[in-house]
Amino acid sequence: MGIFWKKLKLTQSNLNAIEACGGEIMKISELIQESDWKSEKHVPVVECPDSVKADKFFEVTVAIGKEVAHPNTTAHHICWISLYFLPEGEKFPCQIGKFAFNSHGASVKGPDTSTVYTHHKVTAWMKTSKPGTIIAVSLCNIHGLWQYSKQIKVD
Amino acid sequence: MGIFWKKLKLTQSNLNAIEACGGEIMKISELIQESDWKSEKHVPVVECPDSVKADKFFEVTVAIGKEVAHPNTTAHHICWISLYFLPEGEKFPCQIGKFAFNSHGASVKGPDTSTVYTHHKVTAWMKTSKPGTIIAVSLCNIHGLWQYSKQIKVD
Amino acid sequence: MGIFWKKLKLTQSNLNAIEACGGEIMKISELIQESDWKSEKHVPVVECPDSVKADKFFEVTVAIGKEVAHPNTTAHHICWISLYFLPEGEKFPCQIGKFAFNSHGASVKGPDTSTVYTHHKVTAWMKTSKPGTIIAVSLCNIHGLWQYSKQIKVD
Amino acid sequence: MGIFWKKLKLTQSNLNAIEACGGEIMKISELIQESDWKSEKHVPVVECPDSVKADKFFEVTVAIGKEVAHPNTTAHHICWISLYFLPEGEKFPCQIGKFAFNSHGASVKGPDTSTVYTHHKVTAWMKTSKPGTIIAVSLCNIHGLWQYSKQIKVD
Repeated sequence: MGIFWKKLKLTQSNLNAIEACGGEIMKISELIQESDWKSEKHVPVVECPDSVKADKFFEVTVAIGKEVAHPNTTAHHICWISLYFLPEGEKFPCQIGKFAFNSHGASVKGPDTSTVYTHHKVTAWMKTSKPGTIIAVSLCNIHGLWQYSKQIKVD
Repeated sequence: MGIFWKKLKLTQSNLNAIEACGGEIMKISELIQESDWKSEKHVPVVECPDSVKADKFFEVTVAIGKEVAHPNTTAHHICWISLYFLPEGEKFPCQIGKFAFNSHGASVKGPDTSTVYTHHKVTAWMKTSKPGTIIAVSLCNIHGLWQYSKQIKVD
Repeated sequence: MGIFWKKLKLTQSNLNAIEACGGEIMKISELIQESDWKSEKHVPVVECPDSVKADKFFEVTVAIGKEVAHPNTTAHHICWISLYFLPEGEKFPCQIGKFAFNSHGASVKGPDTSTVYTHHKVTAWMKTSKPGTIIAVSLCNIHGLWQYSKQIKVD
Repeated sequence: MGIFWKKLKLTQSNLNAIEACGGEIMKISELIQESDWKSEKHVPVVECPDSVKADKFFEVTVAIGKEVAHPNTTAHHICWISLYFLPEGEKFPCQIGKFAFNSHGASVKGPDTSTVYTHHKVTAWMKTSKPGTIIAVSLCNIHGLWQYSKQIKVD
């Protein structure tokens, strides 16, 4: 468990906090799911260069349903994708952006009548002088939170 | 003023409401600025096809500073771009999406020290079976709200 | 029309821009509706003190459906309220906040099955040393954008 | 470690995924911090009734800096609070709301010149027929993500 402990950055004090509550503390950390995008439609897959030039804007595209399509209806859809960047060696991530997908067919005639839909895909542009990890988090209105990470190097 | 009246869809009841307040009512409508993007850096220029196929997702790119660059610093930056679509002949617009640009260089070392910046440009995907107007609204943290419109046809 | 012209801060150059497009330019300004909250459920009514102390946080509550209730279902609901403040005599508003209401009953069992709903009401806290106008804008997912303004003085 | 394993809902497959990447996968789950609000200013403390009536809206107030004040300047501030609810026994949380605090003193005169600030506190209203856990997540623009949970019962 030593490797496990270290890789997940868990500390003794976290474990103490959990025990002190005498039971389950549901934390958002425990609820953010991950999986293999080749079989799981919910994964917010990040596509960007593996290596970028320092201080030059580059494209980051995030899409749900890369291999297996995800529904887009008034009752069932992806609400948003949030993008973070953790520079290597640093403690705190910064939020690159938050992209909310707001049209899912609703109109005065009822659900799925407007013909207007926002797709669960976005391209943003960012820059950094430090390598690090790009992390995407997304929300499905009925299947909760999902995450995906990709490391980038800087030339 | 007849043409003016009609083009801006103003009604007698709006004018009555203004007069009844006995003075200036500042409304958000009056505060959303517009201008020529070739000389004004704040305009959220929409780029997308002039004509799209019904019910097929197409790309919409919105960028500030298309001709004249806009600053991106901790003290002065573009906060977000919001995208709407008004189907032709309809009364109510739907919001396609809202894209918040959240990294502007802040870190524990102070303003403009992180090297991480989100550019004020986004590409989204939408579909519709009806022609209409795509409208972008953006917010500069010190220069307020700006808008831009582009009409699209459907094949 | 002189009074009308002045109250709405319209300029000759705006009118020229409209004419130059050769027809209707749909602008977001034209689409943000307003009405009497005593009979119209969509109005985002702002409640806060008429006069506040300089540089001291005060409460601002904004609610839709103050007199006439507004539905809250998966198919029909209020998406968000956005709050702005325009200091008196200044040109640019700042955005106080944006409050998105995200739970409207959706679950894996279908629309209106989760029992979890977010009400279209929010209380925020702000401060200012200058009098001015607080402006609320809200979005109904099928009936579009609505606005309301309230002026505040500073002791 | 058995208790630890179960309380954190970790699975063998998560551990395999980590090992397969041959090193550190930075995940957002690992970056969302928590602490004791009596000494840590960043904690988004949730205040609401311990027990609520089924299907009746109740108030939820979330505030940062409950005991130790948090700065609110153009360079250093709280960006937003996001609220989730996980009904007891269910797998997926729903997002109650997202409240962005957008004014931190910026104006054309520079940082901390507008006198207009949004406080990092919000009151929202929600309802549920099921007991569960309310979870708040917040973002400091330089100190990253923080979380707090509170369980509620239903009469």
